[in-house]
Amino acid sequence: MIKVKLIGATGYGGLGMIEFLLRHPEMKIVCAVALQDAGKKISEAWPYLEGYSDLNIVAPDSEEAKNADADVTVFSTPDGVGQVGAQSELDAGRKVLDYSGDFRFNSTELFREYATRIGKDPVHKSPALLPESVYGLSELHRREIAAARVVGNPGCFAASCILGLAPAFKHGLVEKQGVACDCKTGVSGAGKKPTPGFHYPEQYDNAYAYRLTGHQHVMEIEREMKLLCGADVRLTFTPQVVPMTRGILSCLYGRLPTGMTQEKVLSAYRDMYAGEPFVLVKDFKQPASTGAVRGSNRALITVACDERAGVFRVISHIDNLVKGQAGSAVQNLNIMFGLEETLGLDLPGAHP
Amino acid sequence: MIKVKLIGATGYGGLGMIEFLLRHPEMKIVCAVALQDAGKKISEAWPYLEGYSDLNIVAPDSEEAKNADADVTVFSTPDGVGQVGAQSELDAGRKVLDYSGDFRFNSTELFREYATRIGKDPVHKSPALLPESVYGLSELHRREIAAARVVGNPGCFAASCILGLAPAFKHGLVEKQGVACDCKTGVSGAGKKPTPGFHYPEQYDNAYAYRLTGHQHVMEIEREMKLLCGADVRLTFTPQVVPMTRGILSCLYGRLPTGMTQEKVLSAYRDMYAGEPFVLVKDFKQPASTGAVRGSNRALITVACDERAGVFRVISHIDNLVKGQAGSAVQNLNIMFGLEETLGLDLPGAHP
Amino acid sequence: MIKVKLIGATGYGGLGMIEFLLRHPEMKIVCAVALQDAGKKISEAWPYLEGYSDLNIVAPDSEEAKNADADVTVFSTPDGVGQVGAQSELDAGRKVLDYSGDFRFNSTELFREYATRIGKDPVHKSPALLPESVYGLSELHRREIAAARVVGNPGCFAASCILGLAPAFKHGLVEKQGVACDCKTGVSGAGKKPTPGFHYPEQYDNAYAYRLTGHQHVMEIEREMKLLCGADVRLTFTPQVVPMTRGILSCLYGRLPTGMTQEKVLSAYRDMYAGEPFVLVKDFKQPASTGAVRGSNRALITVACDERAGVFRVISHIDNLVKGQAGSAVQNLNIMFGLEETLGLDLPGAHP
Amino acid sequence: MIKVKLIGATGYGGLGMIEFLLRHPEMKIVCAVALQDAGKKISEAWPYLEGYSDLNIVAPDSEEAKNADADVTVFSTPDGVGQVGAQSELDAGRKVLDYSGDFRFNSTELFREYATRIGKDPVHKSPALLPESVYGLSELHRREIAAARVVGNPGCFAASCILGLAPAFKHGLVEKQGVACDCKTGVSGAGKKPTPGFHYPEQYDNAYAYRLTGHQHVMEIEREMKLLCGADVRLTFTPQVVPMTRGILSCLYGRLPTGMTQEKVLSAYRDMYAGEPFVLVKDFKQPASTGAVRGSNRALITVACDERAGVFRVISHIDNLVKGQAGSAVQNLNIMFGLEETLGLDLPGAHP
Repeated sequence: MIKVKLIGATGYGGLGMIEFLLRHPEMKIVCAVALQDAGKKISEAWPYLEGYSDLNIVAPDSEEAKNADADVTVFSTPDGVGQVGAQSELDAGRKVLDYSGDFRFNSTELFREYATRIGKDPVHKSPALLPESVYGLSELHRREIAAARVVGNPGCFAASCILGLAPAFKHGLVEKQGVACDCKTGVSGAGKKPTPGFHYPEQYDNAYAYRLTGHQHVMEIEREMKLLCGADVRLTFTPQVVPMTRGILSCLYGRLPTGMTQEKVLSAYRDMYAGEPFVLVKDFKQPASTGAVRGSNRALITVACDERAGVFRVISHIDNLVKGQAGSAVQNLNIMFGLEETLGLDLPGAHP
Repeated sequence: MIKVKLIGATGYGGLGMIEFLLRHPEMKIVCAVALQDAGKKISEAWPYLEGYSDLNIVAPDSEEAKNADADVTVFSTPDGVGQVGAQSELDAGRKVLDYSGDFRFNSTELFREYATRIGKDPVHKSPALLPESVYGLSELHRREIAAARVVGNPGCFAASCILGLAPAFKHGLVEKQGVACDCKTGVSGAGKKPTPGFHYPEQYDNAYAYRLTGHQHVMEIEREMKLLCGADVRLTFTPQVVPMTRGILSCLYGRLPTGMTQEKVLSAYRDMYAGEPFVLVKDFKQPASTGAVRGSNRALITVACDERAGVFRVISHIDNLVKGQAGSAVQNLNIMFGLEETLGLDLPGAHP
Repeated sequence: MIKVKLIGATGYGGLGMIEFLLRHPEMKIVCAVALQDAGKKISEAWPYLEGYSDLNIVAPDSEEAKNADADVTVFSTPDGVGQVGAQSELDAGRKVLDYSGDFRFNSTELFREYATRIGKDPVHKSPALLPESVYGLSELHRREIAAARVVGNPGCFAASCILGLAPAFKHGLVEKQGVACDCKTGVSGAGKKPTPGFHYPEQYDNAYAYRLTGHQHVMEIEREMKLLCGADVRLTFTPQVVPMTRGILSCLYGRLPTGMTQEKVLSAYRDMYAGEPFVLVKDFKQPASTGAVRGSNRALITVACDERAGVFRVISHIDNLVKGQAGSAVQNLNIMFGLEETLGLDLPGAHP
Repeated sequence: MIKVKLIGATGYGGLGMIEFLLRHPEMKIVCAVALQDAGKKISEAWPYLEGYSDLNIVAPDSEEAKNADADVTVFSTPDGVGQVGAQSELDAGRKVLDYSGDFRFNSTELFREYATRIGKDPVHKSPALLPESVYGLSELHRREIAAARVVGNPGCFAASCILGLAPAFKHGLVEKQGVACDCKTGVSGAGKKPTPGFHYPEQYDNAYAYRLTGHQHVMEIEREMKLLCGADVRLTFTPQVVPMTRGILSCLYGRLPTGMTQEKVLSAYRDMYAGEPFVLVKDFKQPASTGAVRGSNRALITVACDERAGVFRVISHIDNLVKGQAGSAVQNLNIMFGLEETLGLDLPGAHP
């Protein structure tokens, strides 16, 4: 049984981890850490978990947290937390998986560019760990993840876009310039903290774009595309909120290279993702929706190029809290510990 | 007082017309026609209108409908109805405004192309009326609308995209090839008829694209762009449904021509729409949302080009049932009858 | 033209007042006061009002606020604000209408009981004004409101329950003991302030009761019932939140006195509310819903007693932000200034 | 491994069964029957199940259906289906569990009264089976269910109300006369069939009561209460729809007998449900919501009597599709086959 120390246990990302590990046969949470709810049980913070997860929440600097008998520490925390705490976790013999941008870039240079773009402190607090950190999109980095001590879980939008664009950039199915990612998310992507904009009466029946000058997930998409195509890539990214709770619907646009067809694109996507347990490639006549992956670790990738207009178009559907967060994390943990990659994840969500 | 005969009075498009004319000082409905609800009062079909609109609904072929003492007939009906009935309305001395695609194309050739693309009967039933019909997007065709006997009200998605793209195509602010319209709509755009997909438990927390092989509104967008730029235009269009009732959020993408900047695009948009009572142009730092135009006849146009990636991007926000339907219709009627264009329309919606 | 000074202009209650006065022919806002948004325009705080209400928001203690040339001051503020500020408004020659509990009880004794029950300061700050204050439920206190300087607008739940119970208590149609008010509200009833429970992902698909030990609106319902029946009344009240934005659905239960029938109850309700412009009485076979009064100042009262079980049952439907707040307020202002009671209020809401 | 034949596999009740059995270690579906979708795979009817449940759907009268190698047949069908088909299932050696009202009453007399009340055919098609049929509310009839060949699964509202009222009627904690059940349900309770009222734009932001003259679940509540208290019981029941998908929130009102207190009621509830794996009793200071049981087989029962007003009040929270339907069904199947009662059911739902 793999034992997990979970930091940030009471946010939505932490709840996802708790829920998946409740049905995981080989992994369990042994230590739940949270700043604000320390001293409570998890089920006091979240009553729906009563009787299922009644662990005591401990403070980050408590003895219980420091001495937890765990194999791995999951940082379900915002940017800036994992980079400070990772080293001591490693020193205590625990591998590290971090949900934030702290370990998504494996050099101080790249991290500086990332942090600068989004207005955060550009000086990483554990620069020595960056070279060994691995970007945790299982489908693209399975081998490195299996060997890693430190994994940076992908951003939710990023997971959606990278899975939707990877075959295209790898095989030259789209012109590299001028790609636009039009991404609609449910509100849970913003976490559990209430804000005026996500107050129920403000968010119902309301859709809008935000952060039009640059979202924190753009750079990891561009980096992955560069790895796949060998050239610098600059993408446009339009994050949008729509009145739902779960789901990301990303429409990915570019230009079809001369001679490129829907059939060729579709075929390349099917080839690349053949055998992937959590990626399903669809033609545009097949049904797909965010609802079809709600509660599931799957990505549905619809290839729907428009030859008439010369436009490359792929539509990516995920659950932002699963394939976009806790599901990917569990998938990575399975890989990191040599378990079957689908353990604990191979069920559909509930419908409706 | 301008007297209106309303055909299709009990659909959402009819309700919008009823609601706006209740507060219009110079226009009122004198005859309400509907196939299914004939014999009822409007307020029996829609109890929220009790005491506000208690007109008897009459059948299309009733004497009351034929002999209505009206100045104009509004067809709030699907494709195929207006083209059959328009001539007799004109013969009875009533102008005609039609909500469907029946009079959006002013030649049999264009209509045939339109109908063929979307799988409908390509033979128009009143070909003689097509040459005089006018496309009812007030901002672009105000002068012709003022003189018209027959006006084809724009499609909701089309209104959103055309207003968002017109300055760009007119002034060469975007490359003509490869433009993509990513359009999210609320469910009311599909009308009042229940279907499995719009059943509440299926639609809540669910977003998806549909008709990826071609939506009926594409051709009118392409035609208007051609009128503005002088060249054939082929657009990609991705209609999507998100779990809200009202609102269209259209993100419009293309490539910035060499040397084109956000500032130049923004300036050209502001110039073109200066003085327009229902179009507000915004920079990407200013707030905009579908919620901000809910219940209003306004279009909010956010110019948000991405110079770094060379991508033209404009975001258009409307209420699909107002600027996308009944509001545009009332605006057109005001123009057709020489009234102040904003009469009955110059109020915000209710919030929240 | 009646000139209104609006304190608390940027809350939901203030927005309702602004929206209704935009279409009111005899009343307008001349001074908008708000603590947090002072210095902004109203339309900067709420962009949907751009061009409709661009008044500058001033601070409560500003010269503009003090010297406003207004006939009446509306306190759209929480408990404790109006009782402090009312006297100076009166001294400046302005009548006062207050949305909170500050002037719903016209004696220091009653106010003390009210404040004590809900854990607020029991000492009223303007005790001298209490004897002249009038409870602003227009249907029951029209005459006193017309003569009043100080009006306490009813609570939203209270308006719903009092209208639903008044004929019953007045005419002995229900046993006085054991009445239960089961009241479901949309989230806007809690105001615009974001809280964890009203965060979109927490509130969607979730319903619950709250304040089971006593809600602030109970006492005004009991007081009004006592005025009608002449005896002390103790009610049970169960406030509940359901995932909608607007609307209150109150099911009111009690025991039918021996010999009392559905027909008698219905008839008494119809008699009492005959001629009321904003109260519609319905039999249980007629459709009624909160949707049918959304955006409207109406109360729909369905009489649905269960003779088989001996249970009195009436269902009251209002829009919590209209008949439950700003609409009632405008109705009261119309009465206070001798205007037609329905001015600015006599339109349906938008559907859907 | 217990093998299940599922009739009505593609309705919401069927989906619930499929989902729960996917994670059940001792039970699986071997034959999926549905009238409309016969010939498809389940995952073609419901794409979210692709790869999880790809069984072929067969017609009710097909050889595959008749000869299914199953231990039990679940009728997830409306009233009138199970009573026709049950005997042949029994003859084939399969036990029967039915979701409808067909086997909730174990005499032709009671069934006739039930069917008559709700306007259905009062002549049961398998009267010989009625005496042996058992009402499937596990908490009250565990022993009979264990021995039964034919079980009638309770109605969703009924499950909620019976669990909420049982201790009260059993122990005389409430006066028997005048009890009112105020029950709010999510829309999924109406099944998957689209109707005008449940069309997304009609149902959002809208709440209402329906079937005020008598809902089909009343009689089974009254029957169970009679079994517990020994006297005839007549309840008032107010079914309501609120804009959510899952969840029932039932507020149950009556009069407190003289001398009865909140503490006594609470204590009796805790006693009766001590040891029940799926019933949690709460005081009114403890949090409870439908959200807390969403996706779970639990019932949360909040005891919240109002001694001041002399009102008995209990609030019952369930997921209508789980404890109100498929969850109860799996619980019953576990009991019928001697398995651990919580198998396949002992997990929380996903949040948010």
